[in-house]
Amino acid sequence: MSRVAVDAMGGDHAPAAIVRGALEAARELTDVELILVGREDVVRAELDGDALPPRTRIVHSADVLEMHESPVEAIRRKADTSIAKAMGLLARGEADALISAGNTGGVVAAATFALERLDGARRAGIAAPFPTQKGHCVLMDVGANLQAKASDLVEYAVMATEYVRSVMDVASPRVAVLSIGGEEIKGGVLVRRAAEALRAVPGVNFVGNVEGQEIFSGDVDVVLCEGFVGNVILKASEGLLEAFVQHMLGRLHAELEAGADRHFERALDEQLEDLRSRTDYTRYGGAPLMGHAGAIIICHGRSPATAIHHAVVAARRFVERGVNERIARGLAALATNEEVAAILGGGA
Amino acid sequence: MSRVAVDAMGGDHAPAAIVRGALEAARELTDVELILVGREDVVRAELDGDALPPRTRIVHSADVLEMHESPVEAIRRKADTSIAKAMGLLARGEADALISAGNTGGVVAAATFALERLDGARRAGIAAPFPTQKGHCVLMDVGANLQAKASDLVEYAVMATEYVRSVMDVASPRVAVLSIGGEEIKGGVLVRRAAEALRAVPGVNFVGNVEGQEIFSGDVDVVLCEGFVGNVILKASEGLLEAFVQHMLGRLHAELEAGADRHFERALDEQLEDLRSRTDYTRYGGAPLMGHAGAIIICHGRSPATAIHHAVVAARRFVERGVNERIARGLAALATNEEVAAILGGGA
Repeated sequence: MSRVAVDAMGGDHAPAAIVRGALEAARELTDVELILVGREDVVRAELDGDALPPRTRIVHSADVLEMHESPVEAIRRKADTSIAKAMGLLARGEADALISAGNTGGVVAAATFALERLDGARRAGIAAPFPTQKGHCVLMDVGANLQAKASDLVEYAVMATEYVRSVMDVASPRVAVLSIGGEEIKGGVLVRRAAEALRAVPGVNFVGNVEGQEIFSGDVDVVLCEGFVGNVILKASEGLLEAFVQHMLGRLHAELEAGADRHFERALDEQLEDLRSRTDYTRYGGAPLMGHAGAIIICHGRSPATAIHHAVVAARRFVERGVNERIARGLAALATNEEVAAILGGGA
Repeated sequence: MSRVAVDAMGGDHAPAAIVRGALEAARELTDVELILVGREDVVRAELDGDALPPRTRIVHSADVLEMHESPVEAIRRKADTSIAKAMGLLARGEADALISAGNTGGVVAAATFALERLDGARRAGIAAPFPTQKGHCVLMDVGANLQAKASDLVEYAVMATEYVRSVMDVASPRVAVLSIGGEEIKGGVLVRRAAEALRAVPGVNFVGNVEGQEIFSGDVDVVLCEGFVGNVILKASEGLLEAFVQHMLGRLHAELEAGADRHFERALDEQLEDLRSRTDYTRYGGAPLMGHAGAIIICHGRSPATAIHHAVVAARRFVERGVNERIARGLAALATNEEVAAILGGGA
């Protein structure tokens, strides 16, 4: 039985979409115990007078962390936000996993304050799945850890490998370090040192350095970078996609007014909507925040109910398949790997 | 009269597309003197027996810098590459501008070896125009300078402002620094210090920090970042777009086989092709490498003839409108700006 705490108050469509998606998942997955964290009256109002389904309960919290608030400051100041309360359940072992579509900085801050690091993990990192021409590619980190050391990227490789293997069912995830073209400028010290160390980690299928376009080619499963870089790529991809969709819609609807069949217009709209959703990482179960002693899934602020549903499925897999236990074993092996230590040195 | 040297041997479609595009531009622009740099026999073969148009000449070079070569090493080793020869013309004042669709690292390396820095410029940077929902946005730097200091971003602001104003005809370009969300983690020291200094530069219309999606929103004209970050964004955008186009084509052609009209299929293909080209920065006259004493336009390796044509138009504007002279004046003002100096300090 996996106990999954869901932040019912976080997200643009909270609480309605969050509660609906979580309840859908709980009805489907009979081995999941669902804990809805938020203002009890508000959450109950979403039930439309129905009783709570079996294996579901509400944990009340009075406050909400707003999207526009400074996360660290708000987490310190507000005693009883839904995200802090949910993180507390995880910290005390009363839940195994946490899902939030709220302020990402707030999730990271709450985890930093309340949770232990996973054994052997020096840094947390967010792994965001991107759509590719063939499947998905996980980019890690997309913003938990602004500036990374080479040793952080090596730890991320261990974490992302286990996540992709266990939750996304890729037998031997191909791992690459994000770099740029040109021999002389190939990513600098961070990239060179991380790549050298990764070749010496037996549990990681390191395939070399890749440039930005490879995130979407489908030829690798995990791309490693520091948080600032990953975050701007994530946001730029969203912006480009939106511009692209708007452009297509504008031009093609103009064509349609000039006379073409309605069947096709409908098909086009469906394809564009499908594309929007494919590039929205919540459809792949959200982005795990890894490196903490707990399973944490961050969902996009715009998450609809289906995204929350998928996140519950991913959280359950994360717990059942023992992803954190596997990562801890991988990090323990890393800590005693003398070749890696020699490459990374003291200040890596 | 602007004297524009074109690297006839650089690019996936060189020399044919390069020579054709350059000659088209030279015929159209009667105040441009065109210098085609490359193997004379090869360039002449592209003329199809015609004589060279007026104001056009060939400068022979025996070697070519290949796309796969290590640029710095090849520029050192090969005595007579077309890019090095063209850069020499610029260095000796025999040309005012240079255009190349060859190895970007090679253009940067050749400029570093052969050219003086522009007065007051400590670093060179590449400014790449991206399509937006409303026009274009220039991202600088996309790879000339891997790691930047805050003072580099401030210089880039001066350079990109002049380029966008003079060549892209935007009266008062809105300049932003690329950052990430969250108060605590807003981009770190580099971003904070650059933003503080930019507020004190009168010639720059600094509008604040933006996240990655704003590159494509049309709400800003210039986004500043260090070269590693800009390069991975550029490449990731190309990769995402290609994945998007492939997906659209696959799904919609399947729809069409199920029966829809041919008029619409043609329209769709045209729109996708138009979109591909809009996101290809060569259509906006290429990406200037700025900070050197010369006008240098880098074109995409896949440049067709029209891209080279547009690059010649941009190079001519760059020269005629005195972009480098304006930048040098802006940088001179920056050097005596005590407020900026106080913010940036010695080690900025």
